[in-house]
Amino acid sequence: MTTADTRADRPLAIAIAITTGEPAGVGPELTAAALADARGRWPSARFIVLGDRDLLAQRKLVERDAIDIDIDIDIDIEHHALAAPVEAGTLNAANGRYVLNLLDAAIDGAVDGRFDAIVTAPLQKSTINDAGVPFTGHTEYLAERTHTPRVVMMLAGSSDKPLRVALATTHLPLKDVSAALSIDGLVETLRIIDHDLRAHFGLAAPRILVTGLNPHAGENGYLGREEIDVITPALERARALGIDAPGPYPADTLFQPRYLKDADCVLAMFHDQGLPVLKYATFGEGINVTLGLPIIRTSVDHGTALDLAGTGRADPGSMIAAIDAAVFMAHHKRAV
Amino acid sequence: MTTADTRADRPLAIAIAITTGEPAGVGPELTAAALADARGRWPSARFIVLGDRDLLAQRKLVERDAIDIDIDIDIDIEHHALAAPVEAGTLNAANGRYVLNLLDAAIDGAVDGRFDAIVTAPLQKSTINDAGVPFTGHTEYLAERTHTPRVVMMLAGSSDKPLRVALATTHLPLKDVSAALSIDGLVETLRIIDHDLRAHFGLAAPRILVTGLNPHAGENGYLGREEIDVITPALERARALGIDAPGPYPADTLFQPRYLKDADCVLAMFHDQGLPVLKYATFGEGINVTLGLPIIRTSVDHGTALDLAGTGRADPGSMIAAIDAAVFMAHHKRAV
Repeated sequence: MTTADTRADRPLAIAIAITTGEPAGVGPELTAAALADARGRWPSARFIVLGDRDLLAQRKLVERDAIDIDIDIDIDIEHHALAAPVEAGTLNAANGRYVLNLLDAAIDGAVDGRFDAIVTAPLQKSTINDAGVPFTGHTEYLAERTHTPRVVMMLAGSSDKPLRVALATTHLPLKDVSAALSIDGLVETLRIIDHDLRAHFGLAAPRILVTGLNPHAGENGYLGREEIDVITPALERARALGIDAPGPYPADTLFQPRYLKDADCVLAMFHDQGLPVLKYATFGEGINVTLGLPIIRTSVDHGTALDLAGTGRADPGSMIAAIDAAVFMAHHKRAV
Repeated sequence: MTTADTRADRPLAIAIAITTGEPAGVGPELTAAALADARGRWPSARFIVLGDRDLLAQRKLVERDAIDIDIDIDIDIEHHALAAPVEAGTLNAANGRYVLNLLDAAIDGAVDGRFDAIVTAPLQKSTINDAGVPFTGHTEYLAERTHTPRVVMMLAGSSDKPLRVALATTHLPLKDVSAALSIDGLVETLRIIDHDLRAHFGLAAPRILVTGLNPHAGENGYLGREEIDVITPALERARALGIDAPGPYPADTLFQPRYLKDADCVLAMFHDQGLPVLKYATFGEGINVTLGLPIIRTSVDHGTALDLAGTGRADPGSMIAAIDAAVFMAHHKRAV
């Protein structure tokens, strides 16, 4: 093997930062399991794992020496010290700041161009809030720290022609969904999806199918007027911008193979309209992608699973899929 | 073959009435296709097909002579005359009353005990409304004509351990869903589901998983209070009545094999929370069952497909599944 295969001579390897998240949760061991499973899977990527060195060793993640020619995966650990010892499954607000430090370092590195993408393991919102830092979620934090006025949450499967579902609204009470929809907001959401599917997914002409808000997409106004007053005008404006966004379609007929086969993404109007079918279809190996950021960010689509932490029994499927997607997107972004 | 096999000597055969629905739609030909496909499938049932004799012959449905020993399916046509000639695909309000006549005859026969169950092919609401009869849907009409104060719409797949999804609310604008939920209403809905799963599906101890209304089932009130104020109190009262109804669960995690494997039914709070995943999972062979009626009624889960009418290309899968379910339920009802 020539020196061309050693890390020092591969400056163009895709750099993926992984934040290991809540130290009492499954994040550290899922990162270890996913990377252990990765031999040969991501030959052109290197991984920078953010977390406490001792914690990660305890959860079976060890740094690899890139000189060793038997190693085909390149892992660095970027050490951030825990504030307090961790017992798997037991939350401790003393480590809330630690969790944010990992995230800040990953975001800053991605903004600076040192990382091509970041993958986030789950964190526990309450740990951070209990540490005195108001925190509503990864997505909101990423938007704020990168000064992004609007981001779009998209969940996706991991197969070759995956089902992708983006949401027009996310975490708000169901009764507030109607008032949260606007023509401007939907147009901007579609613009972001269209842009990122081109720039980060290599799709030359993304096709985004759009649901209605009401049952049967409102049945010509008989079951609600948002399709007529908001969604259809937004789709007309989006189409005038060159965005291929047909709809609005009834959500209960849209998710059928005959409609989905020509679609790159479905834009659902709210959380429980789009995600039950996405998660059913992806068998728990779905991933979460934040669109609209200046950086690439993917995530698992599950929580910290405190009851499984430290047991090694948590399934790394979603973490593997999230890393897969980050590598895929980073390659496409570089190619643009 | 002995005379014991002839129709006259089989008084205990299950009698299934089929309304062929909108004459310009696919109902007549789907009925024909489903029964043609049925040889040997329903040995203990006989079928009474309601519709215009000439129309049905045109769409390939002919009455079978039960004396012919080669025939293993027993079909009678109950003739109701069209008011005006029909061209496939072209609606004509002159036949609105005809469509209702089929439905009335089927309901009356079921209430009288002549039919064990009715299966309804799709109709076009506008044809009936344009004929001057206010009509909001099969389900509402069945409830009204049988003086049933509350019915429950349930959709189901056709396999041995089918996914079944019942709805707490059905066809109303999304913004009105929250206000339409009440403790009393949910308790009564659960009571109906529990009763009918026992009486018509042969389930000795039905288990009904209940969703929340809001994303993540409200996250302890953070994303909405209906789980705390309405759904949880309703579930407590239902459990006190002996109904096995755990929840409320987040809809996007509930529809996973590990949760569904122990469930006989999911009660979703609204249309687009439960039906996209049900229809995705059943590949267009879902059926619609109206629970809470004094009679058994099943239906296809699709519309009149005017563009396919008369072509013979419409897929009878859902109609076959609806007949299957009606036969299955009628057997169980008789066995109770």
